[in-house]
Amino acid sequence: MTYKYDNVYIKDTYTICGMYEKDGPLGKYFDRKYDNDLYYKQKSWEKAEIKLLKDNLKFLLKKVNLTEDDINLVISGDLENQLAASDYALREYNIPFLGIFNACATSAEGLIIGSTFIDSKKVDNCIVATVSHNMSAEKQFRNPTEYGTPKPKTATFTATGAASALLTSEKSDIKIESSTIGRVIDMGISDVNHMGAVMAPAAADTIYRHLNSLGRDPSYYDLILTGDLGIYGKNILLEYLKKQYKLDISKNYNDCGVMLYDLDKQPVLAGGSGPVCSALVNFGYILKQMKNKNLKRVLIVPTGAIFSPTMTFQKETIPAIAHAVSLEVVS
Amino acid sequence: MTYKYDNVYIKDTYTICGMYEKDGPLGKYFDRKYDNDLYYKQKSWEKAEIKLLKDNLKFLLKKVNLTEDDINLVISGDLENQLAASDYALREYNIPFLGIFNACATSAEGLIIGSTFIDSKKVDNCIVATVSHNMSAEKQFRNPTEYGTPKPKTATFTATGAASALLTSEKSDIKIESSTIGRVIDMGISDVNHMGAVMAPAAADTIYRHLNSLGRDPSYYDLILTGDLGIYGKNILLEYLKKQYKLDISKNYNDCGVMLYDLDKQPVLAGGSGPVCSALVNFGYILKQMKNKNLKRVLIVPTGAIFSPTMTFQKETIPAIAHAVSLEVVS
Repeated sequence: MTYKYDNVYIKDTYTICGMYEKDGPLGKYFDRKYDNDLYYKQKSWEKAEIKLLKDNLKFLLKKVNLTEDDINLVISGDLENQLAASDYALREYNIPFLGIFNACATSAEGLIIGSTFIDSKKVDNCIVATVSHNMSAEKQFRNPTEYGTPKPKTATFTATGAASALLTSEKSDIKIESSTIGRVIDMGISDVNHMGAVMAPAAADTIYRHLNSLGRDPSYYDLILTGDLGIYGKNILLEYLKKQYKLDISKNYNDCGVMLYDLDKQPVLAGGSGPVCSALVNFGYILKQMKNKNLKRVLIVPTGAIFSPTMTFQKETIPAIAHAVSLEVVS
Repeated sequence: MTYKYDNVYIKDTYTICGMYEKDGPLGKYFDRKYDNDLYYKQKSWEKAEIKLLKDNLKFLLKKVNLTEDDINLVISGDLENQLAASDYALREYNIPFLGIFNACATSAEGLIIGSTFIDSKKVDNCIVATVSHNMSAEKQFRNPTEYGTPKPKTATFTATGAASALLTSEKSDIKIESSTIGRVIDMGISDVNHMGAVMAPAAADTIYRHLNSLGRDPSYYDLILTGDLGIYGKNILLEYLKKQYKLDISKNYNDCGVMLYDLDKQPVLAGGSGPVCSALVNFGYILKQMKNKNLKRVLIVPTGAIFSPTMTFQKETIPAIAHAVSLEVVS
């Protein structure tokens, strides 16, 4: 399903990144850098992740000069089991809360739900947020890093940071123009170290349905931006779109997992992942490019591998999903 | 935030229960009973839970004589880490999917998001679903049942089953009249075996805000129905509402966790829990009572403890949330 919106705007965003993201090519675009270590004076990785989101919401409110009483709704999700980072960060705020989960596509899911609330005139504003932490994700999904488990080059690196966007019905310089909700796609891949291959077909399905339902050519957009397929997944997507859908998006396409880090110099293998990876790139870098009118129409397509370690231990393959959100500079 | 809806209806529902729920006082109201064992010919509890939801969606579509192509959206969530039950069930369906999580308040979250999509005229229909499985929840949140860990009488029993509701813009005999989104409330309780005490203050906050924002007296409703506080939580809520909010709802109040089982005869301690507990009672029993006009206005208030075992191991207290949804017979 593809929906168009008339009155949904992104008022402002706030981004906090960790040390690896700060050292990447987009580091200077993030509002705040937590670069001393990955603990942030907390006693566990999980509590450090909660702090990232709690701080992010605090600094977003400060940036837009609002208090929690001014905010109608927060929609947030993360990778921790039971969305612990969002749940525990939100107990510090007296704001109605909806918890969501589509793995690394969570920020897009949040933008779509938030846009619908504003479009239906139920709320005047809402915050869409997400967070991830490299160490808490490694511990939960792979192995504690102390084990030193080697990884193949197709593996991705979970980004550390928090990102949020304030959506409003009040006109601003960037609007959420339309969106397409993804379907669950499972092509039978069970390699947890090759999420790019797992997620590329879901991204292809959503990009194709989005363009097709609106009768748009890829050139309608200045940029189509998946997140986070990584360098191998990026190439798989381009090939797959050509072969299965006769669609060539190579002229104006990039991937957030590839953009967030310097893949030649940083120890991130195939690129970034985690729900905050695409949210940092989109909310931190892309929106600034749009405010400067360097980009006018961007289709962001965050991608998520919605598997659980329990299911892969039971020899299951990995389902994926991708949602598309069209952002436009208001002329 | 409290919202009113003009054009959101519940077309139909489908409920599947397990053997304990079948033996409870509401057993005869559920569409299907899986009462041979808790495996359903699957190789794990988690796969049995996936089957519950997969079957539920199949039988709901059959009951309303629609195919997956007719459905605009599925909104679903469950207790498994990364919503595995919903993710893996939905890969069998070509329907756009949004994953949500507010623990045992998930079905209310789904009804609110689904109502907003329909109210905004973005979709004509959507399915709101949830599922839980006693054994997969015990394994994930407590201990594998084989350990035989004893429990205090304040502990609740995760219900097994799946429940779904088809929401439409097309008029039917029951409408979703209004809703109130909950806030995260943490009163400092860390006892994972007393979720009723953990969740009662969240239910109180939401019930108070709902009635207050609409200027309604508790007597406006034929029934106010929390789910799933259990027998101790139910009494705590009544006392807490009186003391903190000067609000007496005792004349028309009940709790889904208390209603689903026979607490005197079944081995369920303080009562039922799990996201399907309130969904079974509301979608299976309450809606049938409304169709028969035995009840005309019901405020359902599913409650969720949005904690994770990782956080309780780290000595954290337990946050909770409750959302209210007002159901009305269309005159």
